[in-house]
Amino acid sequence: MQTINRQWLLKHRPRAMVREQDFEYREAPLPQADLAAGELLVRNLLLSFDPAIRGWLDDVPSYLPPVAIGAPVRAGAVAQVVQSENAQYPVGTLVQGLFGWQDYAVINRAGDMPPNIVPPGVPLELLLGALGGSSLTAYFGLLDIGQPQAGETVVVSGAAGAVGSVVAQIAKIKGCKVIGIAGGAEKCAWLKNDCGLDEAIDYKSENIEQRLGELCPGGLDVFFDNVGGATLEAAIEHIAEHGRIVLCGAISGYNEGEAQPGPRNLMNLVVRRVRMEGFVMIDFMDRIPEAAGELSQWVFGGRIQYRNDIQEGFENIPKTFLRLFTGANQGKQMLRLAEPE
Amino acid sequence: MQTINRQWLLKHRPRAMVREQDFEYREAPLPQADLAAGELLVRNLLLSFDPAIRGWLDDVPSYLPPVAIGAPVRAGAVAQVVQSENAQYPVGTLVQGLFGWQDYAVINRAGDMPPNIVPPGVPLELLLGALGGSSLTAYFGLLDIGQPQAGETVVVSGAAGAVGSVVAQIAKIKGCKVIGIAGGAEKCAWLKNDCGLDEAIDYKSENIEQRLGELCPGGLDVFFDNVGGATLEAAIEHIAEHGRIVLCGAISGYNEGEAQPGPRNLMNLVVRRVRMEGFVMIDFMDRIPEAAGELSQWVFGGRIQYRNDIQEGFENIPKTFLRLFTGANQGKQMLRLAEPE
Repeated sequence: MQTINRQWLLKHRPRAMVREQDFEYREAPLPQADLAAGELLVRNLLLSFDPAIRGWLDDVPSYLPPVAIGAPVRAGAVAQVVQSENAQYPVGTLVQGLFGWQDYAVINRAGDMPPNIVPPGVPLELLLGALGGSSLTAYFGLLDIGQPQAGETVVVSGAAGAVGSVVAQIAKIKGCKVIGIAGGAEKCAWLKNDCGLDEAIDYKSENIEQRLGELCPGGLDVFFDNVGGATLEAAIEHIAEHGRIVLCGAISGYNEGEAQPGPRNLMNLVVRRVRMEGFVMIDFMDRIPEAAGELSQWVFGGRIQYRNDIQEGFENIPKTFLRLFTGANQGKQMLRLAEPE
Repeated sequence: MQTINRQWLLKHRPRAMVREQDFEYREAPLPQADLAAGELLVRNLLLSFDPAIRGWLDDVPSYLPPVAIGAPVRAGAVAQVVQSENAQYPVGTLVQGLFGWQDYAVINRAGDMPPNIVPPGVPLELLLGALGGSSLTAYFGLLDIGQPQAGETVVVSGAAGAVGSVVAQIAKIKGCKVIGIAGGAEKCAWLKNDCGLDEAIDYKSENIEQRLGELCPGGLDVFFDNVGGATLEAAIEHIAEHGRIVLCGAISGYNEGEAQPGPRNLMNLVVRRVRMEGFVMIDFMDRIPEAAGELSQWVFGGRIQYRNDIQEGFENIPKTFLRLFTGANQGKQMLRLAEPE
């Protein structure tokens, strides 16, 4: 076992586009001697990279406190218990939680949420990927907030991403006509050929607003938005009467130095009687078993396709995070730190 | 009985601020000889002026077709049947409907909604005012879309208007803390002293965003918006977790030549899990008896205060409409054309 704990800390808050220089590498002493009763020392095996992390770097009130300057960046991970003062979590147990950009984390201190014990036999990349938080986000956001009905038209932005691709495929399972918006011919081909979407719009080469008009003559019944900005405005232009807009994220604006203007056509929400609603997965924690059960059936039954983009090397953590914002990631972005023992 | 029908027609569609020159006066022959079986000729007694009319003048798809160039402007009215080919509506009956800017209207042609018969004994100005469409809009928008709970903080923009003032007072009846946003000290004083609001913000002399922060330390649980633009952005800045934004209108943008940018802070809807929903009263037609019954109790019981701004003179119709957009109206804007016979 190592005696140092490698960490990537938040050095200063990004002003606009997040850069590698916003993070600082540190080797801290391993805190194993300090464990109090009930606490655990876990070793991170696999890190999850999510656009939401970008929001946590800003000093604004949110559903979780901002990452402190000089603290390891908060991130989801699968880890293994290497030292335990808690009989519920014996050494060797695989757990999942927000363990951050570091090799080791001490958890279960007062105020921490107790980490989830990982079900045996499931590949770790599935736990962070197709069965992980992004898929749970897709599940609750689409079904609870979007409430799609069979035969309706569902449009998803960021459709090749970890959340969007699962949203689109659940909508297909529910009998909807589904159109994805993604960047590049390769992603669009994957959505149509592998994921079974009815259509895909390549925002890098096509006019989203015009294409939505052509592909959705009856309007969008549900728009699931991961992108915001001009994409959201284009969708509102074609939203159907009594349509629903699920606000999951707005990645187009996360790295802008100044807040960007919102859609100019919000009056459409009035005259077409549209509901636009934001959500965060943490409000659905008590229903995770239900969602995980259904997602497992769909994933293992081959009804949900997914791609994992797994990088390696502790030194590459900030660089890997940046892939989310350039669109370089091909599917769920992860980074492997170690294999379980 | 006259032999001509005075009308105000839409001359051309307003480009930006609506002007008197956008309308044209005409004297048409009275169509009394033309009545087919089932039809009525009604004489308008009292006209209702509502911001929604401005939307109907634009050539955009909406919940009602645009007013045609050269047609009388669509507007709500109370009228009296002066000729009848329909036994359900004998001559003398008082009816309510969208009879437009004219002395006389032929109604109940195929496709028209049958006009509502007015309950006897109710002052006509109450039918268009405190018991009229604007109050029904307030009722359904606040209670069904906003869903305020006792003890919550409700903020209303356009609070001294026909819709806003009723929203604010229903919220008080439901046990909420209520803050109104209105233009000018006189309107704010009326809201606090007569309508019983907890606070009023004068947008002409105060910074809305700053005042909302001071007056709503726990955030806005419900924001009922008649104004849009910067007012909406200020409210989103202080919206509470799980808050609800009721989009009723956006009068600040109705007379802009170009669509104005929307709120820059829509990400607040995500991180605070906020629902923003537009509505139009026509979706609640089947529940009007329930709402009218409750509103009557509140109005006649003195629990809802109201002000009527009743102009006179057929020639003043366009001018009276413009009062809505300068804020000159003191309460519900109407214009009296005749007394019932």
